[in-house]
Amino acid sequence: MKKNIGIIGAGFVAQTLALGFGAAGYPVRISTRNVAKTLADTTPNGYGAPGPGVFHTAHPEIPFVTFAEAAAWGEILINAASGSGSLDALGSAGTANLGSKILIDLANPLAFNPGMPPMLSVSNTDSLGEQIQRAFPQLRVVKTLNTLNCAYMLSPGAIGQGDTTLFMSGNDASAKKEVHELLVAFGWKDVIDLGDITTARGTEELLPLWVRLMGAWGHPNFQFKIVR
Amino acid sequence: MKKNIGIIGAGFVAQTLALGFGAAGYPVRISTRNVAKTLADTTPNGYGAPGPGVFHTAHPEIPFVTFAEAAAWGEILINAASGSGSLDALGSAGTANLGSKILIDLANPLAFNPGMPPMLSVSNTDSLGEQIQRAFPQLRVVKTLNTLNCAYMLSPGAIGQGDTTLFMSGNDASAKKEVHELLVAFGWKDVIDLGDITTARGTEELLPLWVRLMGAWGHPNFQFKIVR
Repeated sequence: MKKNIGIIGAGFVAQTLALGFGAAGYPVRISTRNVAKTLADTTPNGYGAPGPGVFHTAHPEIPFVTFAEAAAWGEILINAASGSGSLDALGSAGTANLGSKILIDLANPLAFNPGMPPMLSVSNTDSLGEQIQRAFPQLRVVKTLNTLNCAYMLSPGAIGQGDTTLFMSGNDASAKKEVHELLVAFGWKDVIDLGDITTARGTEELLPLWVRLMGAWGHPNFQFKIVR
Repeated sequence: MKKNIGIIGAGFVAQTLALGFGAAGYPVRISTRNVAKTLADTTPNGYGAPGPGVFHTAHPEIPFVTFAEAAAWGEILINAASGSGSLDALGSAGTANLGSKILIDLANPLAFNPGMPPMLSVSNTDSLGEQIQRAFPQLRVVKTLNTLNCAYMLSPGAIGQGDTTLFMSGNDASAKKEVHELLVAFGWKDVIDLGDITTARGTEELLPLWVRLMGAWGHPNFQFKIVR
């Protein structure tokens, strides 16, 4: 019996992951603050992907629910909100609904102001992963999947035949073990457990290079590997 | 005729590079603020490598000179000083001696206070590479080789048979071209030109992950690769 995947967020990343989990047989729900407002939004995103309303028409089997409903229903939660919106979205989900569930945090604290390439809004002495863990101490935050484009998170074989590296940070060993098994089931072969949630600083700080490679090449079809 | 390599710095990184350049037939000099004081230092470094006095006795063919002498004599300069000592060392070398030479900057702005793992003393909105370029506007700074252990900088084949990635940042295209040719001669195959010197932020910010991998594994025998 596959666990319910409650996705916090309804944007392109959330949609992509929902399709991936759905295709693999997981019950999955996308979430947002205001479902009616989100479903009325048919504006393509900055990369030309359809708005959530268009997505929902194409994929009616994936329910859009509120943050609170996704958190209450999900057995494994995924933070796919924007970096700047993550703490608010999780706050709206509610501490009681989040409980001590596993939260896979794949967001990055990118700041798009003053311009491109984005900088980090928190780095070096702190990380978004740590901020989330501090704000919700019972939640079992596992930072992972934040170093690559969402198209490849559940399809690692699409880049370099899967000969790439994923990183994982978190305070709870059992949560990391379960997430590791989930990732392996999707084809991940090299997942490095860096240690506690403070090590999320290291992977979030890969983003300044990531966004520059994306800017230089004009596409996100690449992945980190640690050769050793 | 191989160019003179003037190395700014006399620590373990400088020593390792001097041996590598010397073995490849480059005239090379190591430099320090006070030659007599440095050569009197036989204290092993934190990783057990011999102090500069011991190194000099073992390798008398590699001259230790002042920062100013190395900068004046070198045709290609290398910043192998510590991150925190780089601007002072280059200031001591002197703007006139540095001129408009190529400076390969491989230092990282690691801050070892308050403790391990080190943080970055400058990041996100600035980088050491940019600080050096601003302080010495005529110098042609090329940031590279800062994402791996010094043992592999001139021996890239030692990790993953050389199937790894190096990055390069700098404002001067001719300087980057010359450094690229130098790196290729030492066996580098995948050198990504990220753009101007501001892109050094991206590679310096790989260090927070690098130091955590080093801490987790207890050795520096790994390298980044961008798989695409």
